Amino acid sequence: MTDRSKDVVFSSRVRFARNITSLPFPDKLTGEEGIYSVLMRGVEKALAPLGEFRMYRMNGLDHTEAQSLVERHLISPALVGSRYGAVMISALQDLSVMINEEDHIRAQCIVSGFDLAGAFKRLVEADKAMAAQLDFAFDEKYGYLTACPTNMGAGMRASFMVFLPGLALSGSLGSVLNTLPKFGVTARGVYGEGSGAQGFMYQISNQAMIGAGEEEILGRVTKVAESFIRAERAAREELARRGGVDLKDKIMRAYGVLTNACKISSEEFMELIAYVKLGICLEYIAADADKADELITLTQPAMLCKAAGKKLNAEERDITRARIVQKALAR
Amino acid sequence: MTDRSKDVVFSSRVRFARNITSLPFPDKLTGEEGIYSVLMRGVEKALAPLGEFRMYRMNGLDHTEAQSLVERHLISPALVGSRYGAVMISALQDLSVMINEEDHIRAQCIVSGFDLAGAFKRLVEADKAMAAQLDFAFDEKYGYLTACPTNMGAGMRASFMVFLPGLALSGSLGSVLNTLPKFGVTARGVYGEGSGAQGFMYQISNQAMIGAGEEEILGRVTKVAESFIRAERAAREELARRGGVDLKDKIMRAYGVLTNACKISSEEFMELIAYVKLGICLEYIAADADKADELITLTQPAMLCKAAGKKLNAEERDITRARIVQKALAR
Repeated sequence: MTDRSKDVVFSSRVRFARNITSLPFPDKLTGEEGIYSVLMRGVEKALAPLGEFRMYRMNGLDHTEAQSLVERHLISPALVGSRYGAVMISALQDLSVMINEEDHIRAQCIVSGFDLAGAFKRLVEADKAMAAQLDFAFDEKYGYLTACPTNMGAGMRASFMVFLPGLALSGSLGSVLNTLPKFGVTARGVYGEGSGAQGFMYQISNQAMIGAGEEEILGRVTKVAESFIRAERAAREELARRGGVDLKDKIMRAYGVLTNACKISSEEFMELIAYVKLGICLEYIAADADKADELITLTQPAMLCKAAGKKLNAEERDITRARIVQKALAR
Repeated sequence: MTDRSKDVVFSSRVRFARNITSLPFPDKLTGEEGIYSVLMRGVEKALAPLGEFRMYRMNGLDHTEAQSLVERHLISPALVGSRYGAVMISALQDLSVMINEEDHIRAQCIVSGFDLAGAFKRLVEADKAMAAQLDFAFDEKYGYLTACPTNMGAGMRASFMVFLPGLALSGSLGSVLNTLPKFGVTARGVYGEGSGAQGFMYQISNQAMIGAGEEEILGRVTKVAESFIRAERAAREELARRGGVDLKDKIMRAYGVLTNACKISSEEFMELIAYVKLGICLEYIAADADKADELITLTQPAMLCKAAGKKLNAEERDITRARIVQKALAR
């Protein structure tokens, strides 16, 4: 469980925002001006040596397919249905380069567990390759120029997704989250701004840090992640010691329902899988932790439709979700 | 499942009320007058040839032990702590003879499944043996004389315990129960008069039938049982056909909780085991039906204390109950 601190950190992500000097910002685009000839071909050419990639043009993409990219955190919800939007995604699904989201280029690397340094390294490689092909808007004084001034400078955001049942159940999560702004970071739900926290999962990322360098942002967010890992582990130990039979009962019931239910809603699943994940961490349950983590993505609505190969109504999704969950958690 | 219709009828019971001419009715007893010399020795002597029996004197009996007899339906709650009460119980726990309950003698035979005729036959055997030893109060015109006039005549009650999830869940149970008085029978909860129905279980017995003979009572109750068996099976078939995934989901969740919970209250257990028993009947669950039935007795409070060999508080009982249930239902 300590491999890249996966018991606490679900995933680590770094993204860069970049723009091209010769093009108006995406929200000013009125035609297909230069999109293909400059942006898309440039990105394609730059990434080709880095491995296998696939390009999706958003305006030609089926809604389910687009949603499933959002659910896998490969694109932002804002890109869905966008007229000039596109995305290049690596075969390993670690690298994704959104085209014409808020900025011309939003490149991100996402890896499982706690490895911001690794994600950063791989992203820098892609960024250098793109910089060699495209004329990035960069100012000696302000750094990378971005559509929104708060992103100017490094144009970088580092974030990680944490699983905090220990802090949440011990009642200390609220005060911990309240101290985050002091450290220049902010907490959100799993699916970005405005989405509520589900299943004790939080996305922590740096706030706007105009003028801060890449290393500074990375160092700051890494430090916060490390303190979350320490605090959460301590809280779990305490919880296991004091929670006694009530906590174990709650965990085992959640496991019993997830491994037997014939239909389950997304909300109930998220609540129960959180307890099951905690149970795996506390060694009450001998299920595969990685499989439990994967379920959070695999049971999202569009992913379920993709798995079934057809549109599913709400009840069909609940039934398909239950089947997938049961299979993944079976002893 | 059709062996003695155990899928619907949990148990069958027949009891006789008898009194001794030479003794005042139990509620008039003021001393130990004749209890041992006449009643107890007479009963002991009569039953000895019928197999192994054990005598419990209520005033010397530990409360947990006494309650565990109530929970196994071997004595009535009224006998617990009674000063002149006693009970003789066969080693097989099918025959029990209460002494100085409402009447001098309340003899019953209880068997699992639907077998009123078998229970009656074994009870008659015991009754004859006792009649040969004791001077039963019998009147040519009124039949057996009893403390309460409603029992006069045959002094007999025939009853059976039914499991009616099909009728209950299809919404037709209420109207079925309402017609019972017309057939001279009445429905109560599992633990007799005043106890609520738990887990779709009902005890059906003949109402007072002054002047009716043994065969008539037996015939009438048997007929009611047979119609319950037919109606309940039809309701279950219909339920399985129409209930679809919602019913199966409810059943499988109940199974999931019962096989994983670390503590469980009596009320929740009764609700969930009913669904699990239904699931076994509908072949959704491959657990042992007899074991599921036994659990209803084994998880009663005093039975749990007996199993643990010590007094248990409410939480300890809930934990012990969960452990016993989990073991019995494990695949």
